[in-house]
Amino acid sequence: MPSVDELHAQILAGSRRALAKAITLLESARVEDRHSADTLLGKLMAEPRDSIRIGVSGPPGVGKSTFIETFGQKLLADGASLAILAIDPSSPVSGGSILGDRTRMETLSRHERVFIRPSPAGRTLGGVARHTREAIVACEKAGYGIVIVETVGVGQSEFVAASMVDVFLMLHQPNSGDDLQGIKRGILELADLVAITKADGDSLAAAKLARSQLEQALMTARIPGQWLPPVLLTSALTGSGMDDLKKALLDFLEQQKTSGAHTTRRREQAKRWLHDELGAQLLEALHTDKALAAKLRGIEAKVVAGKLTGNAAARSLIQGLLTRS
Amino acid sequence: MPSVDELHAQILAGSRRALAKAITLLESARVEDRHSADTLLGKLMAEPRDSIRIGVSGPPGVGKSTFIETFGQKLLADGASLAILAIDPSSPVSGGSILGDRTRMETLSRHERVFIRPSPAGRTLGGVARHTREAIVACEKAGYGIVIVETVGVGQSEFVAASMVDVFLMLHQPNSGDDLQGIKRGILELADLVAITKADGDSLAAAKLARSQLEQALMTARIPGQWLPPVLLTSALTGSGMDDLKKALLDFLEQQKTSGAHTTRRREQAKRWLHDELGAQLLEALHTDKALAAKLRGIEAKVVAGKLTGNAAARSLIQGLLTRS
Repeated sequence: MPSVDELHAQILAGSRRALAKAITLLESARVEDRHSADTLLGKLMAEPRDSIRIGVSGPPGVGKSTFIETFGQKLLADGASLAILAIDPSSPVSGGSILGDRTRMETLSRHERVFIRPSPAGRTLGGVARHTREAIVACEKAGYGIVIVETVGVGQSEFVAASMVDVFLMLHQPNSGDDLQGIKRGILELADLVAITKADGDSLAAAKLARSQLEQALMTARIPGQWLPPVLLTSALTGSGMDDLKKALLDFLEQQKTSGAHTTRRREQAKRWLHDELGAQLLEALHTDKALAAKLRGIEAKVVAGKLTGNAAARSLIQGLLTRS
Repeated sequence: MPSVDELHAQILAGSRRALAKAITLLESARVEDRHSADTLLGKLMAEPRDSIRIGVSGPPGVGKSTFIETFGQKLLADGASLAILAIDPSSPVSGGSILGDRTRMETLSRHERVFIRPSPAGRTLGGVARHTREAIVACEKAGYGIVIVETVGVGQSEFVAASMVDVFLMLHQPNSGDDLQGIKRGILELADLVAITKADGDSLAAAKLARSQLEQALMTARIPGQWLPPVLLTSALTGSGMDDLKKALLDFLEQQKTSGAHTTRRREQAKRWLHDELGAQLLEALHTDKALAAKLRGIEAKVVAGKLTGNAAARSLIQGLLTRS
């Protein structure tokens, strides 16, 4: 393993191999690796490079990989570099990976300005998300001007992904006769942009129907003055709609920057990042520190036995932490 | 306001008014109320009374109130007492309450063995959930042998509700021709039981279709050996299916208790409760303690400015906490 200084230099110089190693480092659970990762990220953050952070989500079968393969090439057309990070929630039911292999992004995976990082399966969602936020930083400091955070619309992964991107793009497939109850939840609540996939050939009519249904639902769900996500028809097969989508995405970002919403969003996301980590790391610390771990086990046993509420138990632990000398 | 001892005695004696006051107390943000709430809950927990905790969730429009109105009466038939608590995520888009008024549960709300607690709108989801867990304890110690935690399938509220009940019942409406992508997410991941609502009259055929689609989807999603949620047709209008549903619910609980899964589930939920509270209360403490609050603001500003990762910032705060003397 190269030193932190070496990794730092190599990452800034654009080495994909060094970037991959850095992400492995920050995903490591070993204490000494953690220290190196913090040092490395601290050094990288001195670099002012920024990125456009795009979330892409959709249900299994929507054609996400194929979509990103095509849309990604549009994004590359201006000479940008593109990093693709996956938050793979794994199936809460089967325990298996949902995103599956990413060999379908063949052209992108061979492109010299593209970095693709599949997420290790079997991790907890929280764990993966913690590293994804750090990985975004590593990628943008490595010069990737566009970072796509990809996730599948399962469990809470959409909410996690939405909490770390500048623009959240939801994919939806052609359909007909759907009642909109429930199915478009993620779209109605989280989407900044919506793309209907597979809008070609025999599916075109169903895609148009899906678009009008979604537009209607969005109009009802969002209050006047609030951003109304445009719904665009796209086809990874013919490439149609991809230019319009790219334009809509850049327009959205431009509008966000002009209005100050971009800055506010980043600021809120940074705070949430810190807050999420505080909770997670306190737990880690409580498990690691011998005296605290013993106390935690004792109190946890009382909660499990129904002798103490979780609220009171936590209060006693936190008070103990704050007053110990 | 009665004293903690008075409330305690009144709650054990079955006073709904005292129970309502107790829940108001534990929802209070005032420090002195917090102390009283902890004392009260601590005293109540000495009481061995337990309850069956049932989660009920479904998309807006599924007929949740009407369903609970009818199903609740079935549950009352054996002489049980029933408490209904709502986790109202409020609309993340409109800011308004989604569950709406509960005047539709007319019979239940007038029943002497029923306690209904609407959730205050406008609270954060986490905040409401924290109090809901405590409210469950208060209700079961007050003698409510069945506690229903009701939520709407929006945002993360389903996951929150599922983390505090013994059996999670998801409602689904009759439909036809739906593709199952996405729409049944909550059902596929979280449900222990599924009830199709409005399975009567003209909707019966569509209800049966929904049932077979869901059964198919569940069969595919769950691995062999895993619990396969039964899907039942119900009608709040005719009352049909409600007895079968009650039987299926009690069978599930019986099977859970026999296999030890019930105990494991409660144990994991208790741990999660403690863990969630630790994170939330650490944040509160960091904001309340003057010295810590100043440090938090300083570090938060660095994260917002992109000078520090949330991970490193949290680490520095936690380390400071653990080592200060």
